[in-house]
Amino acid sequence: MIFQYENSFDIKEKIQKSSVAILPIGAVEAHGPHLPLGTDNLLADNMATLVAEQTNAFVLPTLPYGQVWSLKNFPGSIHISNEVLIPFIYDIGDSLYRQGFKVFAIINGHLGNSTAIKEAARKLFSDRPDMVVLNLFYPGVKKVIEEVRDSKQVHAEYFHACELETSYMLYLAENYVDMTKALSENPQIPEYADVTPTPWEEFTATAVLGNATLATKEKGKLIVEEAIKNMVNLIEAAKGRGRSN
Amino acid sequence: MIFQYENSFDIKEKIQKSSVAILPIGAVEAHGPHLPLGTDNLLADNMATLVAEQTNAFVLPTLPYGQVWSLKNFPGSIHISNEVLIPFIYDIGDSLYRQGFKVFAIINGHLGNSTAIKEAARKLFSDRPDMVVLNLFYPGVKKVIEEVRDSKQVHAEYFHACELETSYMLYLAENYVDMTKALSENPQIPEYADVTPTPWEEFTATAVLGNATLATKEKGKLIVEEAIKNMVNLIEAAKGRGRSN
Amino acid sequence: MIFQYENSFDIKEKIQKSSVAILPIGAVEAHGPHLPLGTDNLLADNMATLVAEQTNAFVLPTLPYGQVWSLKNFPGSIHISNEVLIPFIYDIGDSLYRQGFKVFAIINGHLGNSTAIKEAARKLFSDRPDMVVLNLFYPGVKKVIEEVRDSKQVHAEYFHACELETSYMLYLAENYVDMTKALSENPQIPEYADVTPTPWEEFTATAVLGNATLATKEKGKLIVEEAIKNMVNLIEAAKGRGRSN
Amino acid sequence: MIFQYENSFDIKEKIQKSSVAILPIGAVEAHGPHLPLGTDNLLADNMATLVAEQTNAFVLPTLPYGQVWSLKNFPGSIHISNEVLIPFIYDIGDSLYRQGFKVFAIINGHLGNSTAIKEAARKLFSDRPDMVVLNLFYPGVKKVIEEVRDSKQVHAEYFHACELETSYMLYLAENYVDMTKALSENPQIPEYADVTPTPWEEFTATAVLGNATLATKEKGKLIVEEAIKNMVNLIEAAKGRGRSN
Amino acid sequence: MIFQYENSFDIKEKIQKSSVAILPIGAVEAHGPHLPLGTDNLLADNMATLVAEQTNAFVLPTLPYGQVWSLKNFPGSIHISNEVLIPFIYDIGDSLYRQGFKVFAIINGHLGNSTAIKEAARKLFSDRPDMVVLNLFYPGVKKVIEEVRDSKQVHAEYFHACELETSYMLYLAENYVDMTKALSENPQIPEYADVTPTPWEEFTATAVLGNATLATKEKGKLIVEEAIKNMVNLIEAAKGRGRSN
Amino acid sequence: MIFQYENSFDIKEKIQKSSVAILPIGAVEAHGPHLPLGTDNLLADNMATLVAEQTNAFVLPTLPYGQVWSLKNFPGSIHISNEVLIPFIYDIGDSLYRQGFKVFAIINGHLGNSTAIKEAARKLFSDRPDMVVLNLFYPGVKKVIEEVRDSKQVHAEYFHACELETSYMLYLAENYVDMTKALSENPQIPEYADVTPTPWEEFTATAVLGNATLATKEKGKLIVEEAIKNMVNLIEAAKGRGRSN
Repeated sequence: MIFQYENSFDIKEKIQKSSVAILPIGAVEAHGPHLPLGTDNLLADNMATLVAEQTNAFVLPTLPYGQVWSLKNFPGSIHISNEVLIPFIYDIGDSLYRQGFKVFAIINGHLGNSTAIKEAARKLFSDRPDMVVLNLFYPGVKKVIEEVRDSKQVHAEYFHACELETSYMLYLAENYVDMTKALSENPQIPEYADVTPTPWEEFTATAVLGNATLATKEKGKLIVEEAIKNMVNLIEAAKGRGRSN
Repeated sequence: MIFQYENSFDIKEKIQKSSVAILPIGAVEAHGPHLPLGTDNLLADNMATLVAEQTNAFVLPTLPYGQVWSLKNFPGSIHISNEVLIPFIYDIGDSLYRQGFKVFAIINGHLGNSTAIKEAARKLFSDRPDMVVLNLFYPGVKKVIEEVRDSKQVHAEYFHACELETSYMLYLAENYVDMTKALSENPQIPEYADVTPTPWEEFTATAVLGNATLATKEKGKLIVEEAIKNMVNLIEAAKGRGRSN
Repeated sequence: MIFQYENSFDIKEKIQKSSVAILPIGAVEAHGPHLPLGTDNLLADNMATLVAEQTNAFVLPTLPYGQVWSLKNFPGSIHISNEVLIPFIYDIGDSLYRQGFKVFAIINGHLGNSTAIKEAARKLFSDRPDMVVLNLFYPGVKKVIEEVRDSKQVHAEYFHACELETSYMLYLAENYVDMTKALSENPQIPEYADVTPTPWEEFTATAVLGNATLATKEKGKLIVEEAIKNMVNLIEAAKGRGRSN
Repeated sequence: MIFQYENSFDIKEKIQKSSVAILPIGAVEAHGPHLPLGTDNLLADNMATLVAEQTNAFVLPTLPYGQVWSLKNFPGSIHISNEVLIPFIYDIGDSLYRQGFKVFAIINGHLGNSTAIKEAARKLFSDRPDMVVLNLFYPGVKKVIEEVRDSKQVHAEYFHACELETSYMLYLAENYVDMTKALSENPQIPEYADVTPTPWEEFTATAVLGNATLATKEKGKLIVEEAIKNMVNLIEAAKGRGRSN
Repeated sequence: MIFQYENSFDIKEKIQKSSVAILPIGAVEAHGPHLPLGTDNLLADNMATLVAEQTNAFVLPTLPYGQVWSLKNFPGSIHISNEVLIPFIYDIGDSLYRQGFKVFAIINGHLGNSTAIKEAARKLFSDRPDMVVLNLFYPGVKKVIEEVRDSKQVHAEYFHACELETSYMLYLAENYVDMTKALSENPQIPEYADVTPTPWEEFTATAVLGNATLATKEKGKLIVEEAIKNMVNLIEAAKGRGRSN
Repeated sequence: MIFQYENSFDIKEKIQKSSVAILPIGAVEAHGPHLPLGTDNLLADNMATLVAEQTNAFVLPTLPYGQVWSLKNFPGSIHISNEVLIPFIYDIGDSLYRQGFKVFAIINGHLGNSTAIKEAARKLFSDRPDMVVLNLFYPGVKKVIEEVRDSKQVHAEYFHACELETSYMLYLAENYVDMTKALSENPQIPEYADVTPTPWEEFTATAVLGNATLATKEKGKLIVEEAIKNMVNLIEAAKGRGRSN
């Protein structure tokens, strides 16, 4: 169910049967020495494929550029501003609506995209009230993470190129991980980073937030499978729920 | 030289050595029964890879959504407006400049993106005068096309899902072509289509503009190799030329 | 140190001595039967006064309108979109910079404003690199809340017109609270509310998220004083830190 | 009838009975040594209260920031550009309409806001044709001013921190006036100031345009009461008139 | 000195000698039965020619479309919104600056354009500080009007297709006036028209505000020559004054 | 049928009878030593008059400023960006629709305006589906040009101040041509000019692309009359076709 490999003669009927389009969205961003710049794209894309299989959904081509303000000064990062990203996602959603989709599920591999996705989803909510837009960033994994992680959390909200994300990659895209280069970093994130714009070069030279050497495929499997299960459930519920005004 | 598979520790030095980034850009758009919706993405992506090999360039992730106004009412098409596409391309270019690239080569698989690319290139020209932006859509293939095509040209300026584009696909992405479904169409494009907005459903039900059954891999090879040769030359010249103000 | 009560002959020198401007920002929004529509304004304004006293800062006039998308369909709510709120905050900050302030501390009484403040702060960070912008929403109160709250948390991220916010009001603006009308509500926030735009009328008729009857002035004092202490520290640190572009 | 002190349970019915919302709008701007920076806010806010009493209207929180281009380089001024102010006023009006108000009366204390209010009012006129937007800046006071003023008018159109405005303050917010510092200035406004952008620092160092020492509370009373009477009449007429398309 | 009749080989040196560009701007708008829709264009264009002769200035092509909100529902009116008109005037001014002009004098034949011209002038003032932008709408004619007019003024601020404007046309573009159709109208402009958006169809069916039958060429001559004299003086002063930062 | 010379009392009925409005659009741009800066305005305006005579159409005032990016650094050029030009044309079209026109024919004298016209036309197509917008730039003249031209074509797509354009001027506006200054130039346009932003000063000092000395009135007549015939036919067809959704 790869959308772009379908042809225009068959797709209309298939859309009516499926009703769900999944957009993987990631970023090109520094992820330390052991993970590739496209880590968030690989994660989003592979999760989307797994979710699509269980929900009879179409996977759209990955939108591979995102909002990476915090790391934009690191080598390799490509930054799209929210002002630009919001209407781009909106336009995709608007076309999907016109094509007959009822659920637009965005599987996001990069936390920095959350604001843009949320804003675009709200605009679509107003303009296309009978389509459900889902903003999915590893939903419902808090508990399983607490169980499997061995390293201490560096920051309350974000994780990056660490035990967790490296584990996800080992499970979803192992060929792109070089564990021999994995680092254990303990950056001191200043308290002000939560209350004032703080590019990450102020507290890390590697972009690794924690101990990537503790990552394992098994940990990744446990967390990602929980995320996938929850995404599947949210999509199935959205299919049934629909919206009526 | 796939940019997103590189890591942030190595990339800085590699950018300095390469100096060229290639962005493939395509679209999701109806291409008849024998070609997939993502035809323009596949073409742009594969040409980019071939060009990169000869120019020591990095290939960025394909931007897989484009401006498809003319076909936006066909099944499967996803349309991004120029107002949104222009700043998106600009932001990518601006990041590439900050990352140290000197040449930003956009290999475009879809004619409808030309306006947006041109506008973004002009803005980058003003703001980043020492980076060269190349807008590459099968440059310099007019003569070879005249030699190899067997069908009559349906329209002076655009071609679509026809002998030509199907041949390109047979050469670059044969697995995604189903020649058993290829059509020969002879749409009567009204004269006014050149002077007033005219969605293509006004003159074609298939989105095939011409005789796709005449497509061959060999024809595709001849034209695409000419395009690639010219793109390589333009990139090499841009490296040398640079810009100085 | 109420900025708008100063006169233009004295203010220049005073700004140089103080260097800190505090902008209270709130909203006009439904807060149940026991709290006024302007609750967030009263909270922000009163906290700003207390913080200013300890930091030799100027308190600007409260910006009394904010982003209240989630509750905009409730009686009394006035909604400003992020697209409008962001440049408004930016313009204030830009003028403050031109006036000579070195620290622009935004004390926010309404979670819904966070995105706009963050975006404006990032733009100011780029354009005015030697001014520190602080985005202050009850910083560092997680622990004290866990100690004082008697009711269960209704949602992981947001609180509204509940034990907590009502306690803040009892401490900071007691005259505007009518505890005889306080409600105890236990809304079932659907799981999808975290992943899809969900106006609050879908799960509450009162806009009270929890048990407001458990609110006390003492609880409010403990939490608010912790927040104030942290805000004072963050401002003092910002004064010293400055930025050097 | 202070809007933000109402609660969301009662407000719906009250809006239906009242039907009129008054938005005071002022500015933070240099007003010489004897008047505070927030002069226009104090004037707008106090007039709004007096008008509301006679029209059964709700007073919204004062929007305390305005367009002060001409004086933006004076100490203490905070400038909001028209591009930002227009949609902000629009958003407030749009929410008021959704809340059920039929008359949106803007009482403006600062001439510089007039353009933004007029533009916002026109947009609301198109989009919300059955709501009346009133743009009220001391309406109908020309005659009484001619009778009471003792100083010569410095400029045909604008007055500032002078006999008139100081008198208004003495009547409406006496506690914030320091008449011992009142100046008598006679700036020579160059003829070109009416035809080319001319920041006021080109012709005044004090921002006082005229003889503030002649201000009296009685003069303020006569003019302000005339303005209030006219505002009340305009609001009452608007209630009755409504709009029907 | 018609700018568009010059050629690019000679113009550079001529600009340096002249230093002044005049932009006539008018509108296409209903002006009753006796005056043409392009009245404001004809007035602006002819005044510009007369002013240019006395100031060694270049006359640019007339911008013949303006902001006509108030009359946009009348037959023949073409309305450009301020949001569009402002940057258009700005772009012209910016090019003139790059071409070497020191004074950009806008001779405006239509009051409704004033806001857009003022906003564009302020932006140019910021970005191009050493160019003077003049916003000229019949400057300094108040006294002579009081002397020559025989009819009562219908409105304090605006005049339209009346004794005055018809007289201007008789002096400047007599061939386009049909005095046999001139009307004498006495519209009752409602008081609220000054405080709320009020399209003119609410109080006039003809768009004639007053007694056009009293118009004479001689009256037009007296007023227009005064305006021209003042415009010439303002331009000469601007040449000498320049701006220095 | 000059629109701006009509009056508002007669125009409504006349619009109903005519149904077609023609907007000439040109530019102020360097055209060498023998042609004036306003060449494109003169061409568009004169062609519009000839076309209007044969189609019972109204000619609107010429929009005399256009997008001249490529030549904006040449003496005398005035450049309007596409972002500004697009909504300006849109606003004109929107007013024409409200006035009752069914066909909005844009006769363009400057290739650089094509993008803006096309974009505006598409927006009008969406918003005003029952009005036809025609984008007319010398339609259908390819064959006759091949027959009459004596000089070699300098570039595949654009011509400028050359044998062709000078011939058009000799036919349409002979008084503004100075053939004694006509040049024969053979600029070497670099190959990269087609793929990267290239201001024309990089390859020409005169802005003359070819041999203007070969221009004749007769050549101009043959080509322009063909263009006019085709424009007349396209307008007549548009009248009959209309649009129905």
